[in-house]
Formats: sequence, structure tokens, C-alpha cells
Amino acid sequence: MEIFRGRRLWIESRMIRLPNGIEKERIIVHPNNAVAILPLDRDRCKLLKQYRFAIDQYIFEAPAGTMEDGEKPLQTAHRELIEETGFSAQKMLEKGFIYTTPGYTDEKIFLFEARDLSPSLEYGKDEDEVIEVVDVAICDLPEMIHNGTIVDAKTICLIHRCFGC
Amino acid sequence: MEIFRGRRLWIESRMIRLPNGIEKERIIVHPNNAVAILPLDRDRCKLLKQYRFAIDQYIFEAPAGTMEDGEKPLQTAHRELIEETGFSAQKMLEKGFIYTTPGYTDEKIFLFEARDLSPSLEYGKDEDEVIEVVDVAICDLPEMIHNGTIVDAKTICLIHRCFGC
Repeated sequence: MEIFRGRRLWIESRMIRLPNGIEKERIIVHPNNAVAILPLDRDRCKLLKQYRFAIDQYIFEAPAGTMEDGEKPLQTAHRELIEETGFSAQKMLEKGFIYTTPGYTDEKIFLFEARDLSPSLEYGKDEDEVIEVVDVAICDLPEMIHNGTIVDAKTICLIHRCFGC
Repeated sequence: MEIFRGRRLWIESRMIRLPNGIEKERIIVHPNNAVAILPLDRDRCKLLKQYRFAIDQYIFEAPAGTMEDGEKPLQTAHRELIEETGFSAQKMLEKGFIYTTPGYTDEKIFLFEARDLSPSLEYGKDEDEVIEVVDVAICDLPEMIHNGTIVDAKTICLIHRCFGC
């Protein structure tokens, strides 16, 4: 049963049957799937300092955005990189996906590493995005995760998929 | 304006004013905050193979759970570790927190590393949890993340916070 339908997510109440036979009513939030991109330029990368209304804070994040209808993850990655950073990438390497919160959503974020960057003429932010592009040394990323400067889950997962452990 | 209130989350539609002055109506999902715990035992750790109805799949995850009213994260970590694995921990080390999906929720997950494990007499799963405890070599975790065996965001972040990059 649909409880709510918005522009970027819809919410469902569903009677589910677990593999052990138990039946329960549960809420499932269905956001649009999304992508996150780590743009690399030699020994540096570009992150965003972005205002997030849900937590009323600016946080460091990889460029990211939701997939439009009919878009493939790779297309979204190219589009969002330009929209959010002003740079386009010659190479966009797939780094798998994550489930952000499988306890109550089916949201999937596809991860990409962007290389061979150049300034794009198509640059244009969404008017409801409040972001600043920040240039960070790649060697500083582990410490930024460790000391809590980076607390955004998709960004930590993406850095991990790009550079391993 | 409250759109929905469930047992573990409530959903709000709010007129927000961005730092750039623009006003928009936005949906904010407010789940209970949660914890995730990586239980370590010498060169091995315990993960769960857990059925998630939102994605209709079994996935590998660190033990985790939502905070009850009045609980502190450390208390939830001790309780959930016992409930989900049957082991209690003498040491529970704080590994910071993450925002899972700051684009539309304020959900925070507090991360912990559990050590000095012993079987607990208080073991008892929630009846609506379908989980199996899996013993994994710590040295296999990077490859499990790299090859997509582990796709759960909080689990990847927790492994990263415990072992660095």
C-alpha cells in the first residue's frame, strides 16, 4: 500500500513474509537509485562541501546524485560530475555498488572513479544545491575518515573501493 | 508536517530554507539512530548473513540494530551484539559515526569494534530477524568488499574505521 509518493522517493507499507514463515507489516522507503563519483587528478581528488537540510549541516561528500528516469548509472555519473564540479571525465571506472540502508530501503548507489578531468562548458548547478568544490590530497583521505571529518557513508565506501584497505 | 509515524521511523514534509535563501518543500525520513558492531576474535571476525525484506536478499552485514528509547549507543552495541551473535564483549571500542543517507534522512549509525568475546547466556534473537552468524578471516575482508560480496554501506564503513586504509 502506497503511503506517500514524492519527487525522489515513495513509501510503501507492505505485509511481508520472512523466510521463517513469520508475517509482519513493514515500511519500505523506495528512493531513486543514485551514483557517487570520486574525481581523481594525479595525487588529488575533488570533494564537495555540501549543505544537507536533513541534518542542517555542511558535510564533505563525493559528488553524487539520483538517476533520472531511463538513465543508466554511467550516464548519471557523467552528468552529475559536470553539474556538481564543473569538470568532465574522459574515464569513468565502475567500482560496484552499495546498499545504503537495506534495513528499510532498497536504495542502491553505484560507485565510480573519474579520471582524465577537464573543465566542462556545460557546468550548471541545481538551484537547490548548496555546494562548494574542495580540492583534497588523496593521502589525507584516510585521516579524514579516521578523525571524523568524512562521515558520509557513500563517500567512505567509495574511497575504500577506489583505494582498497 | 508529519506524513507517517511507524515503530522505527517517522516521515516529515518540511518547507526548508537553504543557506542561499531558496525555499523548497522537502521530505525528511527520521529513522531511529542505530549502531553497528564488528566483533573481532584474534584473526577472525563475526558477520551476519541476514535476510533483508526491502531488497529480498540475504546479505553480509556487521551485527547492528536501532537504539531503543533512552539507550546510549554503547548500551545498544552491547545488547545487539548479544542478541544477534550470542557473544558478549568485554571491550567495546568507539569508532565514530556515519550518516547513512544525509540527502533525505538524519540517520546516524554509531560504529564499534568489539573485543574479548565470550558466549552469552542472554542469547535470544528477535523473532523477525532471519540471521546466521558467519565466521570470516579478517584478511579476507578487503577482497570481500572489493569483489562485491560485502555491499552493505555501514559494514564497509565500519571495517574501514577499524582497519584503516
